[in-house]
Amino acid sequence: MIYLDNSATTKPEASVLKSYEKVSMHFFANPSSIHSLGGESEKLLHQAKGEAAKLLEVAPSEIVFTSGGTEGNNLAIKGIAFEHQHRGKHIITTAIEHASVYEACKGLETLGFDVTYLPVNQEGVINLNDLQAAIQDDTILISIMHVNSELGSIQPIEEIAKISKRYPKLFFHVDYVQGLGKVPLSFKDSGIDLCTMSGHKIHGLKGTGILYVKDRTTLYPLFHGGSQEQGIRSGTENLPGAVSFIKALRLILEKEKNQRYDLIQMQQYIRKELEELPDVFINTPLHAAPHIINFSVPGIKPEVLIHTLANHGIYISTKSACSSKQSEDSRVLVGCGLPKSRATSALRISLSYMNTMEELQRFINILSKSIQQLKNVLG
Amino acid sequence: MIYLDNSATTKPEASVLKSYEKVSMHFFANPSSIHSLGGESEKLLHQAKGEAAKLLEVAPSEIVFTSGGTEGNNLAIKGIAFEHQHRGKHIITTAIEHASVYEACKGLETLGFDVTYLPVNQEGVINLNDLQAAIQDDTILISIMHVNSELGSIQPIEEIAKISKRYPKLFFHVDYVQGLGKVPLSFKDSGIDLCTMSGHKIHGLKGTGILYVKDRTTLYPLFHGGSQEQGIRSGTENLPGAVSFIKALRLILEKEKNQRYDLIQMQQYIRKELEELPDVFINTPLHAAPHIINFSVPGIKPEVLIHTLANHGIYISTKSACSSKQSEDSRVLVGCGLPKSRATSALRISLSYMNTMEELQRFINILSKSIQQLKNVLG
Ligand SMILES: Cc1ncc(COP(=O)(O)O)c(C=O)c1O
Ligand SMILES: Cc1ncc(COP(=O)(O)O)c(C=O)c1O
Repeated sequence: MIYLDNSATTKPEASVLKSYEKVSMHFFANPSSIHSLGGESEKLLHQAKGEAAKLLEVAPSEIVFTSGGTEGNNLAIKGIAFEHQHRGKHIITTAIEHASVYEACKGLETLGFDVTYLPVNQEGVINLNDLQAAIQDDTILISIMHVNSELGSIQPIEEIAKISKRYPKLFFHVDYVQGLGKVPLSFKDSGIDLCTMSGHKIHGLKGTGILYVKDRTTLYPLFHGGSQEQGIRSGTENLPGAVSFIKALRLILEKEKNQRYDLIQMQQYIRKELEELPDVFINTPLHAAPHIINFSVPGIKPEVLIHTLANHGIYISTKSACSSKQSEDSRVLVGCGLPKSRATSALRISLSYMNTMEELQRFINILSKSIQQLKNVLG
Repeated sequence: MIYLDNSATTKPEASVLKSYEKVSMHFFANPSSIHSLGGESEKLLHQAKGEAAKLLEVAPSEIVFTSGGTEGNNLAIKGIAFEHQHRGKHIITTAIEHASVYEACKGLETLGFDVTYLPVNQEGVINLNDLQAAIQDDTILISIMHVNSELGSIQPIEEIAKISKRYPKLFFHVDYVQGLGKVPLSFKDSGIDLCTMSGHKIHGLKGTGILYVKDRTTLYPLFHGGSQEQGIRSGTENLPGAVSFIKALRLILEKEKNQRYDLIQMQQYIRKELEELPDVFINTPLHAAPHIINFSVPGIKPEVLIHTLANHGIYISTKSACSSKQSEDSRVLVGCGLPKSRATSALRISLSYMNTMEELQRFINILSKSIQQLKNVLG
């Protein structure tokens, strides 16, 4: 199996699953129970939070364990919207966000919020002047993703943060789900108030994630209840999930440090090979995350190519993972101004540190043959 | 170890964890990916939903997988509130709900909703006339729990459903977290529109749960995004969690069928023994769930007794699990009209099908000795 759909989801690391199992069986007590078993769970929870904080170079009180990226994004956006709506009801985001940000904003519009969707250029990047111009007196939130999941383009988060810092009434949220472990981002003193991470994109387990919430950022909770997670996210803690997330986080950050260059090389190889194939257009800009390459083969339906590759045990994706069963155009690629023929024939390869150059050579080989065969059949 | 804090959380069944592991490793692909690996995950997800539906005797489209009871309760309550607020902003609940319902309602009050908290009698049960009288033209939701987590009292869900059915504009939500697997409840044709279940209370895994959402009940999603879970709960599915939940559900429903009488006998034994201890007051009414017994030992701080028992490897709780670190009185016991001396000295034993009569005999033995010793020290 050659799995090249790592932006959709990753295979869990065996050691991460092991942590999960151990904590499930040996620390099953409720951290809120005041007996000593509960105390042990509570201690482990504190440790997990401390570890996460150390790895991300933030304070433990700024870590909120969630069930994943979609929860994190919705909690950040709706949490700010509902909590701070008396100050204003204007939100700024981009036209190419993941559905969990985009639809959350659409959902808030139905409740009377006003949302500006910033356009992007051909490279999938916003213009800072557009952002500056969009900020109003009643703007309470800027929500802009780091690495785009379909394209791999990277927004200028540092610069955006600098702008947002000039407006103390305004919060800045970053969807870091695709960037984590691939493109470094510093939270400390960055001007980022909220940042979403998801476990299953970094060889962690499904149903796990972290929302970074900068101290003194108040949110209207999506889950009210027993006041767990600093009152921001109530509910009996998924302690095994939290511990497993830390494990996955530690592993991916090590890899980011030591193996990032391998990823870049693999991406460069694919880019070079794809450039040589006739009728193949690369959509991912040159400046992009090292694990994503989006390309189009106009005239061939992406589903057909995906199935052909799958018959060879090679798995790649079309559009963004989380909505690829919807058959419309890609909102992201259309947003970048791509012609319809390219926006509807796009495919995505997404790498992980587990992939090898040999796998990619085989992929390129099969891909070029498949395109040739399909063209012959169709032509 | 004698674990008698099963209403706080349970130890996962080994076979449930095994299911989780298997699915994590062998069905890791994203169900939304259109390649064949994604297809296999999607098929398993459908199977899981079908199984859950069969076990609960509802339709697969009525099953929404969640991260637990707190999410389920908040999704039901806020989902109805935000979606149907144009019809009215009045909600009815009780004074003794779990924090995840109670605080969700309090949270909605800050957003302009109007909530009636029905009182309960000494047995912890609402009066149906009170409910009837509370229903207004603008009432959109009744949210009433089945089994109370602190006391074990059972609300007359069937009768409430009958009343609510007479008002077609009104939705009825039941928090079934404590009742599931202990006190049967039928959903089909019941008049229940929404019903919350949680995995970790039934020897399932933390971070898992189901919200039953009757067909044609529309909710404002807490998580917008890729439209997973019929659009009600977006986010990459926690497929291992879902499958593990079904496993736990099947096991607990079998036990409910075959071993419920054992639970009742254990409870009767404890009740009889506690009645004979001097200075012990039983707070749980006679008509109650078979796994919970709440009692007070006025004059002894519950923490002290809990720690004494824990030194003997016996684990019981004070108040409700999910907020037992907060040191106020029990809102539930005060709601039942208990005097302060009893409301502040309450302890809870909560059984599971895994407990044995021998464990309970030992518990009673140690408890009575401990009370005696503490009384001697204090007196
Ligand atoms: C950029 C981005 N944000 C958010 C999400 C949602 O995360 P999750 O799948 O953990 O709900 C995804 C997943 O596809 C993503 O790629
Ligand atoms: C009656 C009741 N409802 C809801 C919950 C919350 O469920 P969870 O712990 O899965 O968030 C609990 C848990 O303590 C409960 O006892």
